[in-house]
Amino acid sequence: MSNIKLGDDFTNAVIAATGPKADPRVRTVFASLIRHLHDFTRENQITVDEWTKAVSLMNRAGQMSNEKRNEGQLVCDVLGLESLVDDITNSLLVGESYEATATAILGPFYRDDTPAIPNDASIVLTPPKDGKGENVYMHGIVTDAATGKPIPGAKIDIWQCSTNGMYEQQDPDQAEWNLRGKLTTDENGYYGVYCIRPVPYPIPYDGPAGDLLQLLDRHPWRPGHIHLLIGINGYAPLTTQIFDRTSKYLIDDSVFAVKDELLVDFKPIQDNPKAELELVYDVKLAPSKA
Amino acid sequence: MSNIKLGDDFTNAVIAATGPKADPRVRTVFASLIRHLHDFTRENQITVDEWTKAVSLMNRAGQMSNEKRNEGQLVCDVLGLESLVDDITNSLLVGESYEATATAILGPFYRDDTPAIPNDASIVLTPPKDGKGENVYMHGIVTDAATGKPIPGAKIDIWQCSTNGMYEQQDPDQAEWNLRGKLTTDENGYYGVYCIRPVPYPIPYDGPAGDLLQLLDRHPWRPGHIHLLIGINGYAPLTTQIFDRTSKYLIDDSVFAVKDELLVDFKPIQDNPKAELELVYDVKLAPSKA
Repeated sequence: MSNIKLGDDFTNAVIAATGPKADPRVRTVFASLIRHLHDFTRENQITVDEWTKAVSLMNRAGQMSNEKRNEGQLVCDVLGLESLVDDITNSLLVGESYEATATAILGPFYRDDTPAIPNDASIVLTPPKDGKGENVYMHGIVTDAATGKPIPGAKIDIWQCSTNGMYEQQDPDQAEWNLRGKLTTDENGYYGVYCIRPVPYPIPYDGPAGDLLQLLDRHPWRPGHIHLLIGINGYAPLTTQIFDRTSKYLIDDSVFAVKDELLVDFKPIQDNPKAELELVYDVKLAPSKA
Repeated sequence: MSNIKLGDDFTNAVIAATGPKADPRVRTVFASLIRHLHDFTRENQITVDEWTKAVSLMNRAGQMSNEKRNEGQLVCDVLGLESLVDDITNSLLVGESYEATATAILGPFYRDDTPAIPNDASIVLTPPKDGKGENVYMHGIVTDAATGKPIPGAKIDIWQCSTNGMYEQQDPDQAEWNLRGKLTTDENGYYGVYCIRPVPYPIPYDGPAGDLLQLLDRHPWRPGHIHLLIGINGYAPLTTQIFDRTSKYLIDDSVFAVKDELLVDFKPIQDNPKAELELVYDVKLAPSKA
């Protein structure tokens, strides 16, 4: 590489071009970004052809993105980036001393306009037609990670895909809000909901994220999981996913979201006409920092 | 950062997910890319909000890109990336021992279908209406950097913007192919063309690249320059730009393409009814590597 002329001096000049009025955080982050990008480019002797392919892939990701699909996010996800920023964000929100519930990525299928439902309602508006839908009574107590006391009034957004691997907004055959609801814990911190046992599904792989997976000789599958977003004033908001301990793809989740603490057990339930399985899942929320 | 859980082990797991059938170059490059991206993310404690803004910026860059505009490329350009890959590519094409003409980035305004024109023709099809167009007789000899001998038959693509800062494909008031042509050196390696003295112009800043420049408190201007792309079998293709030594923005080119070796002098010319200025620019091509 001795005849590469644009070395560290060049990189320093690009960084130094940042003007005096740039926000200090922007200045720091971009200095680091520029240095990492340049170092990566030099260390690997990235050619114009390779860079052009990368630019084209990123442009295509943008062109494919719309209200229902965020391909740029998906490209990051298959490289583990969303899991990493999720972990970092949580570490900034939660004091080190709390043993709070572990987080996982939000993913692209959350809807912030999900309607409220009462406890012990069912979110199965369109029962799976393939016979694979096992009904689950999921319930638990939300407590304060510092005091152990129940937290009444916490909002719990829950969403999952159907047994065909599609979320309701991807699938015209599912009713709007199918397998999606917003619960509120009662005075004892209790929440309960009827849902289905989650199944593995592939992330969309007909775009740049899929091209990347193919380049990297990887599959697009995710293990069966249920998404949760839990929040109430005074506590760090919790975004997480819980995974069926018996699911395939736990060790090779295409978006690297699985953590040991997030594996859960679906157990047979007796004397409940509305469910064959029970999932007890308690949540510990950490008080917000300052 | 002690409570960030996803450290090097996580990064190694993401890298290790690459399958056995991935191309060796892909494997190496992505291992390095993933490590740099994760290190950058951890070192700067990038949050979900910041990452979401970055994804949205990249998605918008793709959505803004079309046949006439490549916003993803422009985003890279303002971070110095295209200059870097250009330099690296040239170092791979050219043996270290040759003192060949220095390269610069292609930029987004090249057209690969530019028609051939004879030597000493003018590319000024639509003369500037603002009176700022100074006519230039540009000419020189293309030689072999190893032997010093002239190279007949070399193709020289030349393109420049008009005095309003726009290339013909951006400007409905310019004739197609205005300020653009493909020359061929004669038996003595000679080329000659009539063009205009280049003027500074701002890169398009109504999109994500402009947003970045604003964030970084930088201006979008480029110094006055003429683009050249020179090729003939047996020699490393040469992409370059030459810059008016008296132009503004030589030390703060928004896309970091200026090199000392690429500064040129426009001098008054006598007895030529077609030009007020003369630019002598010789080119040395390096033999291709094996």
